[in-house]
Amino acid sequence: MSSSRSADVHRSEPALSPAATRVLRQLVLHGDATRTGLAHDTGLTAGAITRAVRPLLEAGLLDETGERVPAEGALGRPATTVTLRALAHQVVGVKLTADRLFGVVADLRCGVLDESSVPVDDPRPEAVVERVAELVAGLRAGRPEVGGVGLATAGDVDAGHVAYSPFLGWRDVPLRDQVAARTGLPTTVENDVRALLTGERWYGVGRGLSSLALVTVGAGVGSALLVEGHVVRGHSGVAGEVGHVLVDPDGPPCHCGNRGCVEAIAGSRAILDRAAAAGLPATTLDEVARLARAGQPEAERVLAEAGRAVGTGIATVANLLGPEHVLITGEAVGTDYDVMEPHVREAFERHAFGSAARTALELRPLRFVDWARGAAACAVEDFVTRYGRS
Amino acid sequence: MSSSRSADVHRSEPALSPAATRVLRQLVLHGDATRTGLAHDTGLTAGAITRAVRPLLEAGLLDETGERVPAEGALGRPATTVTLRALAHQVVGVKLTADRLFGVVADLRCGVLDESSVPVDDPRPEAVVERVAELVAGLRAGRPEVGGVGLATAGDVDAGHVAYSPFLGWRDVPLRDQVAARTGLPTTVENDVRALLTGERWYGVGRGLSSLALVTVGAGVGSALLVEGHVVRGHSGVAGEVGHVLVDPDGPPCHCGNRGCVEAIAGSRAILDRAAAAGLPATTLDEVARLARAGQPEAERVLAEAGRAVGTGIATVANLLGPEHVLITGEAVGTDYDVMEPHVREAFERHAFGSAARTALELRPLRFVDWARGAAACAVEDFVTRYGRS
Repeated sequence: MSSSRSADVHRSEPALSPAATRVLRQLVLHGDATRTGLAHDTGLTAGAITRAVRPLLEAGLLDETGERVPAEGALGRPATTVTLRALAHQVVGVKLTADRLFGVVADLRCGVLDESSVPVDDPRPEAVVERVAELVAGLRAGRPEVGGVGLATAGDVDAGHVAYSPFLGWRDVPLRDQVAARTGLPTTVENDVRALLTGERWYGVGRGLSSLALVTVGAGVGSALLVEGHVVRGHSGVAGEVGHVLVDPDGPPCHCGNRGCVEAIAGSRAILDRAAAAGLPATTLDEVARLARAGQPEAERVLAEAGRAVGTGIATVANLLGPEHVLITGEAVGTDYDVMEPHVREAFERHAFGSAARTALELRPLRFVDWARGAAACAVEDFVTRYGRS
Repeated sequence: MSSSRSADVHRSEPALSPAATRVLRQLVLHGDATRTGLAHDTGLTAGAITRAVRPLLEAGLLDETGERVPAEGALGRPATTVTLRALAHQVVGVKLTADRLFGVVADLRCGVLDESSVPVDDPRPEAVVERVAELVAGLRAGRPEVGGVGLATAGDVDAGHVAYSPFLGWRDVPLRDQVAARTGLPTTVENDVRALLTGERWYGVGRGLSSLALVTVGAGVGSALLVEGHVVRGHSGVAGEVGHVLVDPDGPPCHCGNRGCVEAIAGSRAILDRAAAAGLPATTLDEVARLARAGQPEAERVLAEAGRAVGTGIATVANLLGPEHVLITGEAVGTDYDVMEPHVREAFERHAFGSAARTALELRPLRFVDWARGAAACAVEDFVTRYGRS
């Protein structure tokens, strides 16, 4: 699936067998291993590991320590350790927002080597592509190892096209091909929440998990879902819309046309509207949270209702999918979440069915560099996948 | 995952390479193919196909028509067609209910060759195992090709254990091992709704789909979900609990402790309770439906609310997972669904977000033979998986 997201700009990378791709993926995801360990973890025979490792060594992506294997098929192989040369291939990850682009350079383990950002003055696609190219050029300078770009943006992203992005005001922009043409680098584009999930899955809390729900709470309430080891994309392009889980059929109207959706109660705009309707002197989430901390009952109520809406939405996700871990994050988390958190947890536990109530919930503030790192993770994933198919 | 569900009773089956397993799975799922087509669909090389097909031919599971390949690695292979000998391996599938066991014999394409049922007088595990063994023995008689048993039962099933089955009143019954020991056949046990999904996925409406939601409406409201090609199991064992999606926080109490869950409005018991509370002279769903068809407004209201609850629950599934197809079935579907269906669809379309509203909804009555066939499909899946690991 990743490969379909990538523009094939240059094909200097050698073709790899499916086995070699599997070995590379295993090392990127799970770290260094002995050949025996690799055989165990990938289900390949010792001979297949030998054939798979050779081109990766030749391409400079791996190192091997310990005694080398003398010849294919030899008996009694010594236990050599195969090491990923994480710096051998680097990528630039960029998060697009309506007013700024945030970029990082990352290695094959998604270690961040550098970061930078540029403002967006003109949100039209051509202008944004120029700014992306500028940011990539700056981050790439002096780094010949950079061989790919990952872009993450809010909205509906499909096969490298931004089908719809409300914040940027874009419809059907072939962003992948435009950036690939402008930078000369293989490029991948992903929805920002799914990109964040990819980062967490490969290098963060999701490492080794086969299921993970990532819920973002901010202007909108969304989620990206890892289910049985796969990122859910949805046949219709719709997936993870936890913001439109019904909480109260008599609740406030939602922009989707229904009433009482999670987002209509817990989105930033909804919280501020409800605070204003209650006569509170607050124009930011921070101010609402400060009033609640000071014991203002209406501020407490507004944030408690928001927290309960988020908790109910997450319980629905848990009841349907049973994720191993739920990570709740977003720009708002960190400003008002000390107030909302107990209500999130209380509503979650009340609405989670049976053993789903024991799901681990983690709340964590989100920095822009995390988004950019998620975009980089998509570029690494794309490299690993594409490498085996070129 | 399937293999962990199977008791390894006898190991007379030859070991297969992962490639051979992939070929067998491809042929079972997608029908006969040329070697070239198999190579394309499995991503294996022509040489690997040759090595994979050989033991399957030798085991009598495949036939080949057209000119044979002379030797491995020869150029210019003629296009021979590889055919699954579906009758070469047969399985018995059994659906357990509190008062009857329903069984089928099926081939590798899940074609039903025979069916039978026996009553359950004593719901204790030992007695039920005896009845299963009796049913299996009857269906197996004169069929030496029968090489596996699949069992399906409502409740919480994990790794061959029935952790909890409310209808049978069982807790932590090692059903797989007991039936395997009693029949001498490799046995697999699955939750009945997931078994039904497996059947639909391999041989029914789900064939070729990577996502499918199967929603059952009856005494309970449940679902099994295929997401990105994988059946969702849930880390905690909880998954697919569409019956506990919140519809109305002021609604009727649910056995789960909350109010206004889908099941508290649309489960058979809930419908009958609500009909009784409205003073309707009805003790079966059929009678409620008959009154509604005759224009009795309270009967219409009760079924409309039930239909809307189901539609809202399904919209939540669609918003989170974006399935390609939703199949709504159950014992009740077919008695009252002509009355409920428009309300299911209306609520679904109202609550589905964006393009999710275009998801195909199919309503279909459910027969007991379908459940048993689902159990058989699990046994076939298990055979294909296990075969490559023995």
